[in-house]
Formats: sequence, structure tokens, C-alpha cells
Amino acid sequence: MAEPVSPASDESAFLNREPLKLGLLGLGTVGAGVVRLLTQSRERVSRRAGRSIDVHRALVRDIGKTREALLPTERLVTDPDLIVDDPAISVVVEVMGGIEPARRLILRALASGKDIVTANKALLAEHGDEIFAAARHHGRALAFEASVGGGIPLIQAMTVGLAANQIESIAAILNGTCNFILTSMVANGASYPDALSQAQALGYAEADPTLDVDGTDTTHKLAILARLGFGAHVSTIDIPCRGIDRLDAADVRYAGELGYTVKLLALARRGEWGLMLRVAPTLVRHGTPLAEVRGPYNAIQIIGDAVGETLFSGRGAGAMPTASAIVADVIDVAVGRAAITSRVLADWSNAHTSPTLAGSAQVRSRYYLRFTIADRPGVLAALARSLGDHTISIASVIQHEIDETAQGDSGVPLVIMTHMATEADIVAALAEINRLDAVKAPAVCLGVLD
Amino acid sequence: MAEPVSPASDESAFLNREPLKLGLLGLGTVGAGVVRLLTQSRERVSRRAGRSIDVHRALVRDIGKTREALLPTERLVTDPDLIVDDPAISVVVEVMGGIEPARRLILRALASGKDIVTANKALLAEHGDEIFAAARHHGRALAFEASVGGGIPLIQAMTVGLAANQIESIAAILNGTCNFILTSMVANGASYPDALSQAQALGYAEADPTLDVDGTDTTHKLAILARLGFGAHVSTIDIPCRGIDRLDAADVRYAGELGYTVKLLALARRGEWGLMLRVAPTLVRHGTPLAEVRGPYNAIQIIGDAVGETLFSGRGAGAMPTASAIVADVIDVAVGRAAITSRVLADWSNAHTSPTLAGSAQVRSRYYLRFTIADRPGVLAALARSLGDHTISIASVIQHEIDETAQGDSGVPLVIMTHMATEADIVAALAEINRLDAVKAPAVCLGVLD
Repeated sequence: MAEPVSPASDESAFLNREPLKLGLLGLGTVGAGVVRLLTQSRERVSRRAGRSIDVHRALVRDIGKTREALLPTERLVTDPDLIVDDPAISVVVEVMGGIEPARRLILRALASGKDIVTANKALLAEHGDEIFAAARHHGRALAFEASVGGGIPLIQAMTVGLAANQIESIAAILNGTCNFILTSMVANGASYPDALSQAQALGYAEADPTLDVDGTDTTHKLAILARLGFGAHVSTIDIPCRGIDRLDAADVRYAGELGYTVKLLALARRGEWGLMLRVAPTLVRHGTPLAEVRGPYNAIQIIGDAVGETLFSGRGAGAMPTASAIVADVIDVAVGRAAITSRVLADWSNAHTSPTLAGSAQVRSRYYLRFTIADRPGVLAALARSLGDHTISIASVIQHEIDETAQGDSGVPLVIMTHMATEADIVAALAEINRLDAVKAPAVCLGVLD
Repeated sequence: MAEPVSPASDESAFLNREPLKLGLLGLGTVGAGVVRLLTQSRERVSRRAGRSIDVHRALVRDIGKTREALLPTERLVTDPDLIVDDPAISVVVEVMGGIEPARRLILRALASGKDIVTANKALLAEHGDEIFAAARHHGRALAFEASVGGGIPLIQAMTVGLAANQIESIAAILNGTCNFILTSMVANGASYPDALSQAQALGYAEADPTLDVDGTDTTHKLAILARLGFGAHVSTIDIPCRGIDRLDAADVRYAGELGYTVKLLALARRGEWGLMLRVAPTLVRHGTPLAEVRGPYNAIQIIGDAVGETLFSGRGAGAMPTASAIVADVIDVAVGRAAITSRVLADWSNAHTSPTLAGSAQVRSRYYLRFTIADRPGVLAALARSLGDHTISIASVIQHEIDETAQGDSGVPLVIMTHMATEADIVAALAEINRLDAVKAPAVCLGVLD
């Protein structure tokens, strides 16, 4: 039927093509990973891209700095214009991170006809409209698989593989640092500061972990997923966010007693009232897929109207997993698929009017509540009445017997798991309860993933 | 920076384009799912495909048969030539299954210039070389996301998202019927026949479940993954395969005592000696991602040299999940990405010489062994000696006290978990042990996923 194919002639066909020249904006951990992967897998990547891939120039801060000799010194530049204005470079890989100068350089590179591969979630979250519009305006590819979920081919799943679906909800663990810390807190009963120190010692948390642990990084990623999955043009400030930095080991322990683990989740859910977006530490039932995601891994559960529930997991950070996504994007650009995806995505997202975001009166969940109360008669009754007044019903209660001599006046813990309630009712009830004389500390409140 | 974009003009741009006309070979469960998804999501699919998608003709066996009125009767045909020869049809969606006439019709459709979307794992497993070569020869797209893992965008992950990686190993649950049955056996201690009956009653197993439960279906899917992941041109017959149809509830129970669950796994692993491919019921440690995949779900764990461990899970069968993958492929064809993927894949796979398959002397695993032995002194010693003679060392042993009056002469169970051993040594040792007088029934042997 088919004529015989000669592998030899194919190989020479692509080896004779001009190499694709990359400009690398940034040669930190991820940039070095990209160079390493392109080097160690040169033959495989060339074959899959249909031509060889050369890192033509890489932007560094200090050429004199001692670094692994991944690239000849003459390819290192400190002036980004030597990359974004170089006509020999056809693809710019942005791995410097942060808003500026990344934003300005990407816009310049697009204007001078270069395709873009970026891992920059903060930039896409905060300036997505501008960056996507510029790529469209100049007819260039903008590939960003590495911006969410590290090496997990998640952006591709949402834009291509699940394209026939209306996405109903997303629940995702998107920050490996937080998941590592939470895993330690669950496994060893460690306090948050101790678990953070351990993560830093093992290289899973940066010296300044603020943007990871306060939820900002997760919020950036959720903003990108909300754009792809729901056509939502939101910026970080639109997404209610709580990090793990004030999480108490006691709540991790009580959650465990109730059959749950605590995960920092990015949540998006479509409802009649609009789109709910939240980032918060959340109780996830033991034995469910997200609960079993441990250590520095990421996982994304996506529910689509046709496909049902899907889950994607893998390493969400690190030099080589991130490089895996970036080099896949470079291949996608080289073969011409990325340009199509970018064009299709622009049509697709421009067709949406951004959905209304749900307010706390529309957001419903079960809630875990921990109160610190005076150990005297009538307090539980007062709390229960206050919850009931706000139409919140109680599913279960934990109050352990305590060592009376040890407690002093600081109060005893009372843990309540509610049935479904609106966030607005919970907030109102807790405000009322926190004012009670018998309540010794503000209530802790965590949502539950159902 | 970018000029303002008018959604209205975009919409008219794609709505003015000619509809893409599909010919559907088969209107069974999956075919009906495709029509339903295209109908209920017409607006979304059109937007994402850049043009509307029409089912122009559908092949059925009997036009008179009562069916849901998904398509006007005049679109139904019983003669496949009216589809594969119709110049108005540009994409043929093959969902009839089986080797013939699907093979012949796909080759005809390719020859007459049509792109192909197929869910046919048996055909691709057995005649992949011919089908892929024909698509290449005629310069057409061949998209087959639905052939493995149902709605999970797995083929895309392997061909695009993980393209920068050398795939090191795959361990996958690829048959929802088997996973449903095994989940029942674990959860309720059900026997295989009872669990099968339950699966049939709930619609998770067909009236004749042979190809599912004997492992054939999983083997077809593994052959496709082996082609994509390892460039292996294998057919089903090259892959050692055991199903779940002779699995004893006792082994599921003992595995549980040892901390494992039993899953029917498709396994592929690259080693110095070549490529190991196996389909077999396998012990998977509790708490690991594959162990937690329950009911009719599929899951695929892929380890790549750059990305590390990734996992993809979702519904592996059913009308709508499969339609999700097929319609995603149709969109991919419509926008032009599928043609690129098919061309790239052809280059990529032709460059490989098919790897050597590992023989049983190279395949290493820990093994679960269950013996049925006479309850008398010295038998355990004889077994242990025989294992030791074949350099198999014992990691743990279970022998419960038994009710002596109840046993009669049928023997008592002895369960041994080994350390790492080669399959060849295990086979040789078991052949020797099975000949012992004190051994009352052939030993049961299951591999362990590590």
C-alpha cells in the first residue's frame, strides 16, 4: 500500500535545515536546565523539532560570574537588546521571571517578529491581556506550558486535549513548596516554622519563601487556568487568597482525626451565579487523589462536562521538569503547532465575556471550624445557637478531655465540621462568635473539598 | 501596544467558513456519544475548531433500527463507500472497532485524501506500521487520542507535552472493566466471578468480557504506547500477557495483608538490555498513586528523564469521555495541528530502529508467590532451599494458623514475598517447586511494582 520510507533520507532532510536559534532571557536555575536538556538530548530534540535547536545568546547579569560551562562565554550577554533585536534569533525563551523587565522585553521581541516561550506566571497573570493581544497582533506564537504545573503538560491538556469540554471545575495543588511543607506537617506533626526550615534545608523552599507560602504564586497560576478554562480575565487581586503561613499544626492534626488532610488548593468552579475562584488551605478527604499528592508534587483535578473527572500530576517545579515543559514548547514552536494554538486560543478567549465572579454569598462549602473557648457550661450551646441563627448546621464535633491543671485561662479547643453553608453565613457567624466573652481567640476556618 | 480586537468580526470570520464535514464509521455507543457532544456543544466546538463541524454521513448496520434521533435518517448509510468515497467529507471518524473492515476503510479514506480520527486500538496495535505509513504516504492526519485512556489526553502528552523527554518507563491501568472488577475484589473480598457479574450488571463489563479480562485490550493499548514512547514496532503477540480472569480472591486478600493492592498493569521499561513489556496483574503498594485508582478509572504513570514521574488519570471508557477525545482530535484536525503532529510523529518513529525486547532473564521484579503445601515439617525449608538455589531471596512470609479439622488433604497456603529476582529464575524455581510431592497445587506468582 504505502511506499517504503527511508529513514536515512528523512534524517538528512532535517539535518540540512537551518538550526532554530534561541535567545534565552535568564540563565538561572531554569535557564541552565533548558541549556542542559537541549545539550544532553540534542539528537532527540532535533529529531522531534525537525531541525537542531541552538541557544544563540543568553542574558546574564554578570558574565564574569563562575558558572557551569554550559555555554561558551561569547554567547553570554548582559544587554537584553542583543537578544530581542537580533534578527538571527527566532524564538525568545523568557525564564527571568518577575514583571519588569520581562514584560517590556517580551513585547519588544514580539514586535520584532519573534515567537515567545515563557515560564512567567506572574507576568501572564497580571498582564495576560496585554501579552496575549500583542502575540496575536504580531501573529506570533506565545507558548507558556511551564508557567503552571512545571513539567506536567497541563496547559496543553486544557487548550487541546480537553478542548471539546466545558470545564466545570478545577481543584489543584500548584505550589510544590507549600505541598512539601504541608506533607511534613501531616506526616510528622511538625509546626509550620519547623516544616518551612526543613523545606529550606532540602532546597524545596527559597530563602525568602513569601510568594510561595502566602499563596501569591498559586494565585498567579489560578489566574492563568481561569483564563484558559473559563475565559475569565482576572488578575491576582480578584482572587481571594490565603496562604499556609499562618496554619496551625493543631488544625492539621484535627483534620487528620476527621479523616482529612490539609492542602493549599487553587479552586475554580462554574455555577449559576458565575465563577468561584479561591486559593486557600483546604481539607481534602483521605484516599481521594488530591489528598495522596505528597512532597513537592503538583496535581490538577479538572472536571469537564464530557470527560468527567481527570487528574494530572507531576513535579511542579525544579530545573529539569520545568525545562521539560519549555523544550516541549520550543519543539511545538519549531514544528508550527504553537502558532496555531496561539491563534486558536486568541479567537477562543476573545469570544468570551469574562464571567461574573461569585461573591461570598454564592460560595458554598462544608467548613472546618476551630474555636478556643472558656471551659465552662453553656459555651457550646452559645456557639451552636449562633451557627444555627446563620442557617449553618453542624455535622460533627470534636472536644477532647483536657488536663485541667495545664490549661490556665487560655481556653480549650472545640472543633466543628459543618454541613454545606455559604461563605457569607460563615463569615457573619464567626464575627458574632468571636465577640463572645467565652471565646479566647479568633476562630480558625478552613473550607472542605467535596 | 496591540490594536483592539473586535470579537464580533472574529465570530463572523469563522462562521463564514465552510463547515467541516465528517463521515462517521459506526454509530454505536461511542459514535452516538460523538454526535451528542457535537450537537450539545456545537457553539463551543465551532469556536475552537474555527468552523462548524457537521456529521455529514454515518455508517450504520440497519437504518430501520430504532435509535435516538441524533441524526436525520437521510444521513444514515449502510454502504461505507458512500462515506470513504464522498468528496464532500474531509474527515473520517472511525468508531466501528475491530480489524476489518475498519482497516480497509481507513486505508481507502486516506487514499482519497481524508484525514482520519480513530479510537481503534486493536487496529493500531496490529497494523500500526501499515496505517501510519499510509497516512504519511498520503500526507494526511491520523489522530488517535481516543485509542488509549479514553478521555485522558495521553497520546498528546506523550507526543507533544513530554516530547523533550526520553521515556524511561510506563506503568498503566488501561482497562476500566478490569479495574472495576479488581476494585470490587479488594473492597468486598468478592470472588472474580461475582465481581464480574456485578460489573456486568452495572454496565462496566460487556456480556462477553473476554478481550477485557484476558488482558488483550490492555495489550493493544500498550503496543500503541510502546510505539510512541520507545519507538517499538511490536504487535500484541510480542507482549507477554496475563489477564485477571484466573485471579483468586485469596491472592487479593494476602496482597492486602502485605500492604498492596492488585491492579492489571501495562508495564514498559527501558533498560540496558532493551525494552521490557508486560501485561499482568501486579501488586501495587497502598498509598501510591496507581493503587488509589478505583472503579472504572484509568491511570498512566510515565517517567521521563527530564520531567521525572507524571501521572494522568480519568475515565478510560464510556461514550462521553471517549467522545471528548475524538472531538478534541477533530478540532485538532480542523485547525491544522493534527497534520503537523502526524508528520512529526512519522519522522520521529521512522528514525528508531525498534528496540530489542527484554527476555525473562533480563526482567527483574520482586515477586509475590503463593504455594499450596502439605502441612507437615520440612516443606517450608524445601521451598526456601529451592528458591535459594535460584538466587531468589525471601523478604517476608505469611503462614496463618489453620483450622486443622477443616483442611483435609488439599493443603495450606504459604505466601512468600521475594526480594528482586529475574523472571527466568522465578519460572525455573517454581517449575522445580511445583514438582515437589508436598506441593498440592501450582504456585501463584504475581510481580510487584516498585
